[in-house]
Parts: sequence; structure tokens; C-alpha cells
Amino acid sequence: MDVNNYMDGKEQLERVRERVIETIAKNMNLYGITDSIGRLYGMLYFQNHPMTLDEMKEELGMSKTSMSTSVRTLTDLKMVEKVWKKGTRKDLYQAEEDWYQTFIDFFSIKWRAGISMNIAAMTKSILELERLAKSEEADEEVRTAAEIDITKMKAALSYYEWLNRLVDSFESEEIFDFIPKNKDEL
Amino acid sequence: MDVNNYMDGKEQLERVRERVIETIAKNMNLYGITDSIGRLYGMLYFQNHPMTLDEMKEELGMSKTSMSTSVRTLTDLKMVEKVWKKGTRKDLYQAEEDWYQTFIDFFSIKWRAGISMNIAAMTKSILELERLAKSEEADEEVRTAAEIDITKMKAALSYYEWLNRLVDSFESEEIFDFIPKNKDEL
Repeated sequence: MDVNNYMDGKEQLERVRERVIETIAKNMNLYGITDSIGRLYGMLYFQNHPMTLDEMKEELGMSKTSMSTSVRTLTDLKMVEKVWKKGTRKDLYQAEEDWYQTFIDFFSIKWRAGISMNIAAMTKSILELERLAKSEEADEEVRTAAEIDITKMKAALSYYEWLNRLVDSFESEEIFDFIPKNKDEL
Repeated sequence: MDVNNYMDGKEQLERVRERVIETIAKNMNLYGITDSIGRLYGMLYFQNHPMTLDEMKEELGMSKTSMSTSVRTLTDLKMVEKVWKKGTRKDLYQAEEDWYQTFIDFFSIKWRAGISMNIAAMTKSILELERLAKSEEADEEVRTAAEIDITKMKAALSYYEWLNRLVDSFESEEIFDFIPKNKDEL
């Protein structure tokens, strides 16, 4: 009877964790993270100790290659970090459990990548179109179209400058002055 | 000579637009939007008039089905809107050009979807684990594990409550009181 109850409790715990892992993976899927990477993060979230690549591989039945790539994606996004443990030669990994932090890191990384990509492309394009709009050799219709595009891209640049300041406020945690964390966590 | 210059200018304009469309698609790709949907948005962004599905299909060489799905994805994300034009029976679509607005809509929609999904799963799971943690039939080890999971999930719920307030500040545009738009756009 004891053994059965133990199993029931353990099974119940596993069922709950499975549901939450599923939800975490679905949520990450909204931002283009694959299901298996989402499930890996979810699994690590419920571990109360860091794991080696081999342990994760065994737990999830993923190949070594896809496990390495997945862990790499999660460490790049700062959702998982490598930890050091005295006396262990293997790399150990643990989930970042502070979701305020994972949120800030995830979107700061994505947004900054988008910002620099776009600012570079827009700046170069505006310069080229300004030359075209002034060129007396270009057709009137083309010059007008160039002017319209310049206006659009300047508005876009201005937006990216704003987004840059939003990311600054995330990284400096100033955002929590505007939208405070819940009291019970301060 | 005139014809050549006209072509040159037009070609230059097209090359610039192509580069920006490429960048827009790459940027949207960071959030799991496929390349062809990103390119569709980019193409519409540079049109200075609304387009029908047939016109878009022709411009991008996509199939009717995948064009409909792509336009649906973009309208769901409020990046493209259906417009009405007197005397036209066909549906017309145009890109939302205000990137502050597309940013707010895109992330509000994604975040709210994640928030409700997670709050539902976490709330249900906490209730179940609280029952388990109190159950005298459950093993000590299981009850301790349940307690730890409850603490983690309560922290997660608290974070989602904060995220909800962040999205509120986006939708109410209060965020611009904290991080003001650039002067030249006010």
C-alpha cells in the first residue's frame, strides 16, 4: 500500500510537471522556439540541480547533436547557464528560474539584433535614395517614389531609436520603476 | 539615353527596396514568422496603395492558398489591415506603416496569448500540488518536491501578473509616458 501511494503521489507530481512543461514549450513556440528546445527548458526548470548533457540526453531521448544545439540556443538566450561544480569535469547546466530575467534577456537579445540589422539597412538605403531623389538624371516618378520611401524609412529609424531606449530600460531594470514588480517579490 | 537613365533610377529604387524587404523578413524571422510572410509584409510596406489578393499573388509568385494564409497571419497580428474602397468588390489590404503600432500590437497579442495559457496551467497545477503536499498518504520526498514546485510556480504567476501590467501599458500607450517617442514624431 505504501509503495502504491508513493507511486500515486510521484505520478501526480509528474503529471503536473508534464502539463506545465507542455505549456512552457507552447509559449516559447509563439516566438519561433522549437518544441524540443522548449521542452528541454521546461525539464531543466523543474530540476533542482544542474545537469550534464548526458543526463539531459537520457531524460529526453534526444540525439547528442540536437541536444548540444538545443543547449546552445538556450544559453545564447540566457535561459540556461553553464555552472561550475568542484570536482566535476563535465559541463553542468541549469535553467534560469527568474522569469523576469529570462523575459528581459530574451527580448533584449532579439530586439537588439533586429535594431542593429534594421538601422544598418535603413541608414544605407536612405543615403542611396537621397542621392537618387536629387539626381537630375532620374525620372520624376522615380524621384517622387524615392522621397516617399525616405519619409517611411526615417519614421522607421525613429521608431528603432525609441526601441533602443526601451531595451535600455529593460537592461537597466528601470522598467521596474515604471511597472513595479509585485510587492511580495521585492 | 533617357530610357536608360529611367531604368537605372527605377532599378536603383527596386534594389534599395529589396534590401529593406530582406531585412524586414529577417527581423520577423527572429520571432518565428516565415520568410515568405515577412517578404509579403515588406512588399506591402512599400506599396503606396492597398492591394488585392490577386495582385499580391502575381507580385510574389505565391500560390492562392499560401497567399490567403499569409495575409490571414498578418491581419491576425494587425500588421496588415483590410480596407474598403467604394466601387471595388474585391478585398483590399494594406500594411500598417506605423511601426510603434505594429510593435505594440505584435507583442501584446503574443504576450497575452502566453499569459492566459500560463496562468491557466499554473493555477490548476498549484491547486493540485497543494492538495498533494498536504496529503498524508504521499511520500515525504514527493511532498517536499511538490512544495518546491509550488514556490516556483507562484513566482511564475507573479511574473505573469507583472507582464499583464506591462501589456496594459503598451495598449494604453502609457509606455510612451515612460519612454517618450522621439520629438519629431509627436
